[in-house]
Amino acid sequence: MIITMYDLAGAEADRRFSPFCWRARMALAHKGLAVETVPWGFTEKDKLPQPNAGRVPVIVDNGTVVNDSTAIADWLEQHYADKPTLFGGGTGRALSRFVQNWTETVLQPGIIPLVVLDIHRHSRPQDQEYFRRSREERFGRTLEEVVRDREARLPAFRASLDPLRRTVERQDFLSGEAPAYADYIVFGAFQWARAISDFELLAADDPVRAWRRRMLDLHGGLARSTPAYGN
Amino acid sequence: MIITMYDLAGAEADRRFSPFCWRARMALAHKGLAVETVPWGFTEKDKLPQPNAGRVPVIVDNGTVVNDSTAIADWLEQHYADKPTLFGGGTGRALSRFVQNWTETVLQPGIIPLVVLDIHRHSRPQDQEYFRRSREERFGRTLEEVVRDREARLPAFRASLDPLRRTVERQDFLSGEAPAYADYIVFGAFQWARAISDFELLAADDPVRAWRRRMLDLHGGLARSTPAYGN
Repeated sequence: MIITMYDLAGAEADRRFSPFCWRARMALAHKGLAVETVPWGFTEKDKLPQPNAGRVPVIVDNGTVVNDSTAIADWLEQHYADKPTLFGGGTGRALSRFVQNWTETVLQPGIIPLVVLDIHRHSRPQDQEYFRRSREERFGRTLEEVVRDREARLPAFRASLDPLRRTVERQDFLSGEAPAYADYIVFGAFQWARAISDFELLAADDPVRAWRRRMLDLHGGLARSTPAYGN
Repeated sequence: MIITMYDLAGAEADRRFSPFCWRARMALAHKGLAVETVPWGFTEKDKLPQPNAGRVPVIVDNGTVVNDSTAIADWLEQHYADKPTLFGGGTGRALSRFVQNWTETVLQPGIIPLVVLDIHRHSRPQDQEYFRRSREERFGRTLEEVVRDREARLPAFRASLDPLRRTVERQDFLSGEAPAYADYIVFGAFQWARAISDFELLAADDPVRAWRRRMLDLHGGLARSTPAYGN
């Protein structure tokens, strides 16, 4: 039975840009599971299956609704234990949490003030007002002001990637010789940026960029299937 | 056969403060291996067994010399595979590298400008001149200047621990329900600080501090066996 996944979409229904949805999408592909995605907008809270938390990703797997990318990864690992592993066991799962927490406290907060105006630009017209109002409240500034000096902030952002850079210059993937869920967590953040912004986060010779290319190649080039910028 | 480990010592031979040596020491204890440590000073490069890189930890295991904390962990995992695992498999080992790279690019560089003068103070008299000269060259300032405004820098240091904090407030150890090598990597940095400095890095209610206490309790309170400050 095909799994259904509710997936954040931009003004074009095939532009998928949620970092959390990309984690789930890549995890489903890693497990080799067929999925049908439903494009969803920020303001369509009533269109999600119950129960939900008003956010995506949400999957429906054989009648069971699972919310939240972390819960989805755990669900897939448990229910499709015979398929390639996402964690490589308990230690790998625990350490993936550290990678997740680094992604959510360093990487994603570092990306958003560089690209937040681009997210607005690519959102569905009916979502733009909601997006602008909620994000400007959070920042206490207009979106234009948030991104204004982004060129000047780029070196500090790139320096913040050192733990990732040093890892993927010595091994192909965060998870070792082959990718696993920790890679999808980090990749989701970069995929989010490239799906909505032409502002290149990574220098041409950055080992992180080479890793991102390896990630884009995975699962038949799945992450290249969404409209996006750059490589 | 007892393993010999060359271990950085301060002015008192039992004050052991190298973060890298603490990784190896905890890894040996994790494997339940008997070890005899040899106190070693920064300037005693000729006292290490061959081959060496002029740094500790170095272990001698049944005639084989192994240098470098990472190589030692790999050696122990491979040669004592029947003992408790340090990595929990290939994914855990790969993700431990990310934790190591975070420790070496964020955590340790964050700690050193807070405690570098205290390291000097606790070094062996015959090592102090070497230590001061090499570190002042690196910083381009006197050690006194480096630590001068450390109180003011403490909030930023504590904020940099967010990925660690968020992880260990939700699970007992970085590696999950039980500690493994990733925990020892991070712990080594905190143990280094507490062995030589009374400058408390962590707020009393910080979940990282509770985790540090759990680490200090391990292996019969091994890390409490060195002279140190605080808890």
